[in-house]
Amino acid sequence: MNSRCSSVCFKEHHDGTVRVQWREHRTPEFTKLNPMQKVPVLVDNGFVLTESDAILKYLANKNDVPDHWYPRQPERRARVDEYTAWHHSNTRPHAAKVFILEVLLPTQSGSPVDEGRLVRALSQLDETLDKLESMFLRRQPFLCGDDITVADLLAICELMQPLGGGRDVLKDRPQLQRWRSRVQSAVGEPFDRAHAVLYALRDRRRARL
Amino acid sequence: MNSRCSSVCFKEHHDGTVRVQWREHRTPEFTKLNPMQKVPVLVDNGFVLTESDAILKYLANKNDVPDHWYPRQPERRARVDEYTAWHHSNTRPHAAKVFILEVLLPTQSGSPVDEGRLVRALSQLDETLDKLESMFLRRQPFLCGDDITVADLLAICELMQPLGGGRDVLKDRPQLQRWRSRVQSAVGEPFDRAHAVLYALRDRRRARL
Repeated sequence: MNSRCSSVCFKEHHDGTVRVQWREHRTPEFTKLNPMQKVPVLVDNGFVLTESDAILKYLANKNDVPDHWYPRQPERRARVDEYTAWHHSNTRPHAAKVFILEVLLPTQSGSPVDEGRLVRALSQLDETLDKLESMFLRRQPFLCGDDITVADLLAICELMQPLGGGRDVLKDRPQLQRWRSRVQSAVGEPFDRAHAVLYALRDRRRARL
Repeated sequence: MNSRCSSVCFKEHHDGTVRVQWREHRTPEFTKLNPMQKVPVLVDNGFVLTESDAILKYLANKNDVPDHWYPRQPERRARVDEYTAWHHSNTRPHAAKVFILEVLLPTQSGSPVDEGRLVRALSQLDETLDKLESMFLRRQPFLCGDDITVADLLAICELMQPLGGGRDVLKDRPQLQRWRSRVQSAVGEPFDRAHAVLYALRDRRRARL
């Protein structure tokens, strides 16, 4: 799904992108783009858009991308919108919390990981992974059907995050591992490029141990 | 936005709907429709769809509704998708938490309201209301532009919920009150019909005081 945007900075999508550096989202320049001070932000010929969910759907709606990414047929499109709505209250916060507790907070504060909160976060994430397996992937290879959609991109992006802390949250989950492999094959080489920063974080952590 | 669906049950949308009764979402019959045991669920000629966000967008995509509800022009549509993605991590959980703490938990358990948790929940909701005013409604009458969209329906639905506990969360917020009046005018008579259960809850509570 190639973008024709002049300037894009966000974690899922790296063709022709401008990446934000550490804490750059707090600068006045970035705050002008997004007063919420959050990444990602897309700038497409002066049109500024936040929220990775909205950005991926906009890119699919605006550009001539293969239909499977965000199908135009109403029932198939609804399946993608159904997952993404669920994603925001489940996959997104639960995977992010593990990354925040294991990587972000200890890096910022220099304090050790809060083990009690981490155990609770991992348990919540486990419930979400159970549902991904038993509901969304029960009878199909991708989250919303037979082919990859923007829903899979949003999900894999969150589920890869804890890898930065050396944790593969899909380690004991063969069904989800097979799904991850399918997503990786469908995305191709950009999959590893998109996750290069995470791989580097993981490798630095391994070297320290 | 009238639905041509044969059987619909969800809180935002009541034309030709089947409402679920108290705890009916836990029955085997409902669980067959939605294994997550959550309302709303839409059934449209055998097509079963969950998540109010996805349902409203599906109804707009599938039916011949006025374009303003969910504009087809990519930039305008992206504004709606941007709000709804933000909604799931902000308006939705923060308003719901106030309702859960003040109405649902005390009703289910018979225990008094947990005041400490309620204060924290109200403070989080306040931050969300600040952002609704200063970001989304800063220069426009509705959340995503000059006319009402499905984003306003999702937002008003959550922000009305605490009324069931006798709390008008927009009481000291004239800017958001004016927005609510605009939404109410744009929706017309179905606005009060959709909130009849909440009004009844509020009135029962008042009568007990």
